[in-house]
Parts: sequence; C-alpha cells; structure tokens
Amino acid sequence: MSIAVLYGSSRANGNTEVLTEHVVKGLQVNKLFLKDYHIKDIIDQRHEENGFDSVDDDYDKVIDSVLESDVIIFATPIYWYGMSGIMKSFVDRWSQTVRDKRYPEFKSKMAQKTAYVIAVGGDEPKTKGLPLIQQFSYICNFIGLDFQGYILGKGVKPNDILIDEEALINALNLRKSLAE
Amino acid sequence: MSIAVLYGSSRANGNTEVLTEHVVKGLQVNKLFLKDYHIKDIIDQRHEENGFDSVDDDYDKVIDSVLESDVIIFATPIYWYGMSGIMKSFVDRWSQTVRDKRYPEFKSKMAQKTAYVIAVGGDEPKTKGLPLIQQFSYICNFIGLDFQGYILGKGVKPNDILIDEEALINALNLRKSLAE
Amino acid sequence: MSIAVLYGSSRANGNTEVLTEHVVKGLQVNKLFLKDYHIKDIIDQRHEENGFDSVDDDYDKVIDSVLESDVIIFATPIYWYGMSGIMKSFVDRWSQTVRDKRYPEFKSKMAQKTAYVIAVGGDEPKTKGLPLIQQFSYICNFIGLDFQGYILGKGVKPNDILIDEEALINALNLRKSLAE
Amino acid sequence: MSIAVLYGSSRANGNTEVLTEHVVKGLQVNKLFLKDYHIKDIIDQRHEENGFDSVDDDYDKVIDSVLESDVIIFATPIYWYGMSGIMKSFVDRWSQTVRDKRYPEFKSKMAQKTAYVIAVGGDEPKTKGLPLIQQFSYICNFIGLDFQGYILGKGVKPNDILIDEEALINALNLRKSLAE
Repeated sequence: MSIAVLYGSSRANGNTEVLTEHVVKGLQVNKLFLKDYHIKDIIDQRHEENGFDSVDDDYDKVIDSVLESDVIIFATPIYWYGMSGIMKSFVDRWSQTVRDKRYPEFKSKMAQKTAYVIAVGGDEPKTKGLPLIQQFSYICNFIGLDFQGYILGKGVKPNDILIDEEALINALNLRKSLAE
Repeated sequence: MSIAVLYGSSRANGNTEVLTEHVVKGLQVNKLFLKDYHIKDIIDQRHEENGFDSVDDDYDKVIDSVLESDVIIFATPIYWYGMSGIMKSFVDRWSQTVRDKRYPEFKSKMAQKTAYVIAVGGDEPKTKGLPLIQQFSYICNFIGLDFQGYILGKGVKPNDILIDEEALINALNLRKSLAE
Repeated sequence: MSIAVLYGSSRANGNTEVLTEHVVKGLQVNKLFLKDYHIKDIIDQRHEENGFDSVDDDYDKVIDSVLESDVIIFATPIYWYGMSGIMKSFVDRWSQTVRDKRYPEFKSKMAQKTAYVIAVGGDEPKTKGLPLIQQFSYICNFIGLDFQGYILGKGVKPNDILIDEEALINALNLRKSLAE
Repeated sequence: MSIAVLYGSSRANGNTEVLTEHVVKGLQVNKLFLKDYHIKDIIDQRHEENGFDSVDDDYDKVIDSVLESDVIIFATPIYWYGMSGIMKSFVDRWSQTVRDKRYPEFKSKMAQKTAYVIAVGGDEPKTKGLPLIQQFSYICNFIGLDFQGYILGKGVKPNDILIDEEALINALNLRKSLAE
C-alpha cells in the first residue's frame, strides 16, 4: 500500500507536519510539500469552446504522485477555519484534470483510493474545524475518494501539538491501521 | 456608505458575478476582481524572530480598498465546496496584515465593517454550501466583521443563476437594504 | 398537490407559526400541531426478537396524514439550536414505522414527497441554525424525501418575525412556488 | 470531581452506553438514564404574563443531580442525525429552569461545569454526526458550559462499537483525563 501525503502548510515543521509525522513515521510515504511546488490558480475554462488551456507548472508532477498512491493524506494547517490557500488552489485544479484528455481515468482512479485529513488549528479546532471536515467529506464524495477519517489537533505556537494528547493517540492509532 | 466587492471567480461573468450584479446594480461599489491582481500565497512567518518579510505584489492595493469601505461583499463561486483558492489565498494573507506595523488598526477597522457572502455552486449549494457559510461566520467573528447575511445560489452553466428565483429575490432584497 | 405542515412548537401563534402562515395562507394545507397529539418517545426495539411492540397513542394519525400528502413542511422553532423535542420525538418514531408491517411502503412513499423546513430562532438563526438544516438534509436523504429548501427566520418575542424581511420574502416566494 | 452522565438512549446496553462505560468504568459517576424518568415536553410560556407553570414530573430530580456535578457527559445515540428525542426534551426544559425562581443560579452554576458528548450512530457518524456536535457546541456556549470534547462512535447492531478502535481509544483517553 502506497501513501501520498499532501502538506498544505506554508512553513516547515509546523504543528500539522509534526502531528502528521506521528502518523507516517516508519511508513513508506511520498511526502508532497505543496509550498515547494509552483502550482497556479485554476482558470475556469469549463465553458469555453476549446476547454482548458494546458498549464505550465508543477501541478502534473504532484497529481501524478497522488494518482500512484493508494492512500491520500491531506495534512493542512487550519488557516481561517479552512484548508490553506495553497492546498485549496491545488484541489481547485482537479476541475481541470477531470476534463483533461491526458487523464481519462482521473475520477475512476481516485475512486479506488482512501483519504484522511489531518488538520491543526489554534482556535477551538475540534469544533470550529468541523466545517472543514464537512467540506472534505463533500470533496471526497464528489470525486469518489473513500473518506476514512480525520484528526483535528490544537496548536498555535511551534510544537504545541505535542501536548494535544487526544490528537497524538489518534495519530498513533491511524499509523497502526495504515501499517496493517 | 461605501461598498467593496471581492470577486473570487477565475472567469468573467460567471454565475456568482451575475448574481452579485443583481445586488450591486445602481449602487456605488468598488469592484475588486481578485483574479486581476497578483496576490502571493502567505508564507507563515509568525514564529520567526523578525516576523513577516514584506511581500511585493498587489495585496496591499486590494486590502487598502477593503479598508476604505464600510461594507465587504465576498462574492465567490463555490469551488469544491469552499471559497475559491484565489479568495482563500487573499484571506490567508490577513494573518500577515494583523501583524503588520503599517496596519496597526487592521483589526479595529475591520470590526467597524459589515460583511455579506454571495456564493454560487452547482452541487446542492443550499445545503452543501453551508460549511462555507459557517467558515465565513467564524472568519468574521475572529476579525470582528459583523456578518450580516449571505445568499447561496445554484448554477452550473453560464447564467443558470437567472432561474434561481430564490437567490434573485434575496439579491434584490439585499440591494434594497444596502441602498437605504 | 396536498401539503402537510408539521408544527413543532409548544405554544400557539409563535414566530414559526406566523412565518409559516405567510407560506401557506390561501393554500389548502393539513395543519398538524404536534403539541396537540399524544406521541410517545420511541422505545428502540430494533434488536429484540419480536421487534417493536405496537404503541397506543396518536402517532399513527399524524403519520397517516403525512403519508397522504405530497409535500411536508417541517415548521419548528429552534430550541437549543435544534428542532423542538416534540418534533424530534415524532421523527424518532419513524425508526419504528420503517419496520412496521402495517406500513410496508413507508420509505417508498416518503421518497415520492418533497420537504421544506421553516425554522425560527432567537440567537443568530441564520448561522447557528445551519446544523439543524444539515441534520434535516441528512434525514431527508436517508428516508428518500426530496429536500427542496428551507427558510430560517429570526425572532424572540411574539411577532418579531414580522420584521425579518428576508424571511418574509422567502416565505412569499415559497408560497408562490407551492401554488404553481 | 463529580461526574453526571445523562443517557439519552431508549434501550439498555446500547452501543452508546457500552462506549460510555469505557469512559466511566472505575470512576464514581452518577448515571442518569433519562428513559427511566418521566420528563414532560416543555410548554413554552416565556411570553405569558405569569410565566411558566410548575410541572409535576421527574425533571427536577434529574436537573438537581446535574447541578451537583462538576462534569456533565451527554451520552446519546444518534437518532436521525441528532440527539434522541428523550434527551432533546430534557434539554428543552432548561428554557424553563433559566427562568425558574427556584433556580436563581442555574446559569452561573452551569458555567462552572465542563461537558463532554459521547454519541454513537450507524450512518457515517464521524461526518454525519458533526451537526450534532456543532449543536452541542452552541448549547454549551449559550448556557456557559465549557465544552471540552466529544467522541463519535460507529455502531448499528448491539456491541458493534467494540470494533470501533478509534472510539475506544478516545474513550480510554477521556477516562484517563477524567481520573486525574
């Protein structure tokens, strides 16, 4: 089983990454730090005669890695009660990929994968992060991903997450189930 | 009363823009099409010794216009059950502005404004768009904006919104109340 | 087209009822004031060998009226950020009806109906009432009802709803579409 | 520290009770099985000249036990994507208690307590149970309860919950933190 982790943070070693490390430590995972790729915002050309123009950036590299994996972990800090703009812009681009002739099986391939969300925020993440989880649930439903679970953690300052015991045990539990 | 409209779409004349036009027609508004500005993703430097580096892009232009207004209308298509990445990246940047010495009164100024959300989507927006509304509610609470209301509309193809009678009458009603 | 209105309030002429009157005035509707019926709480006997015992109360009368209608309007005050206990206890009983041999077509009949929710609350109903709407959306999905829309209104004191212009115009609009 | 557990199920030994037992085993708790008390639906008399009539049932017994505790655990099966009608009817009655001269300190006493929710459902409880959690969050905010956390578990048939490892470890973790 291969695992791709999409990191949405704009800084290294943030709380979300630390929590996610508790999940993936010892597992073979493909870490995709979205901030290290150049991914353009989507230009919605769904309704143009010739459809979408091809885009020259790193998006294909990332989506190809995602498509090769069996499991996708969305690891995003909670910025303004949602996923980071970096991650959202990546997801927005799926609207192009589902119409991209080079990816005729995008949706059917996604429908064979499972997904998890790991999200850490500072302001009552375990309640105020719930709309984000609902959003991911709708996203997964739409594209066919089997949304298996999520971990919400609390953290403001660096390494705060290490005192969120509930998040940590959920991380260990998720690691165990991914290792099986 | 001055009104700023932040448009989150990546195309011109989309359903969200058409619906928003029903709200603002005849009113003096400052239209800010985010797609026409170059706005970089935030780099989270909250925890670095020297704080945030200054960013060379169009963000200041947009946020200055926002700060000059009494009312902010967030007009975003619903992409993947959330605001567009373009709009999210703009909002993410507020995390820098609240710490920016050039904007010492950012939060207190925002707290004097009212906000509305206009969002149009294709897949059951009036229920599946609710997490987005809850997210905006949290965003407004955090920054002090008085979240006065929202309109959710349905549309997939161009101008579909013109047959969403409920959205249209809510748009007219909002226009009336903004005109008072 | 026949319409059943389920009223969840525990008092007469409350804001929810007043708002709902704007929807149904002039239409032929079957008004079912749940407070006027004796409806017992469900006793969950799904896992007992002999299943559910028959219950001696007014539930059948109400559900029979509901089943005769094409449209169901759930009109409930928002008590503690949810539907009233009176209405919830009524809905809970559906778990018995779906297993009741006297109602072999309960689910398939419900699946031919459309549903609306009208809910009025005092504390920011247009955002804090959204979990209730999401709950109704799941309820309708499960039982097969086509959830067509909802109106959230604001009111604390008697007749407060009459100054919630947005709710009133949505009520008129809904009446118009029901009358067609 | 004293703990009151409010059970909302209409049957004994259901999945919610089993999961809650993992939380409270070995702790001294006051178990309040709402189904074993006679608690009438609220009659909303907030707007009547003489206010609420006194009600002759078991409500006072239960709320008195709640008021004597430092921690309240709401343990409810997820019926129709919400708390059970039995539990909702109990909560609805708080509207009377906040106005009851015999309970002048109801709100201030509640504001000294912490609350947890344990809820088990059969249909994707970890996403479709989220509106219920949001509702409890609003309830707690309103009455002043410090909402410390929740556990969502999955179960349809008796004892299904025993294979929901995530719920079980969260239960153990909560027990540990309550025992401190």
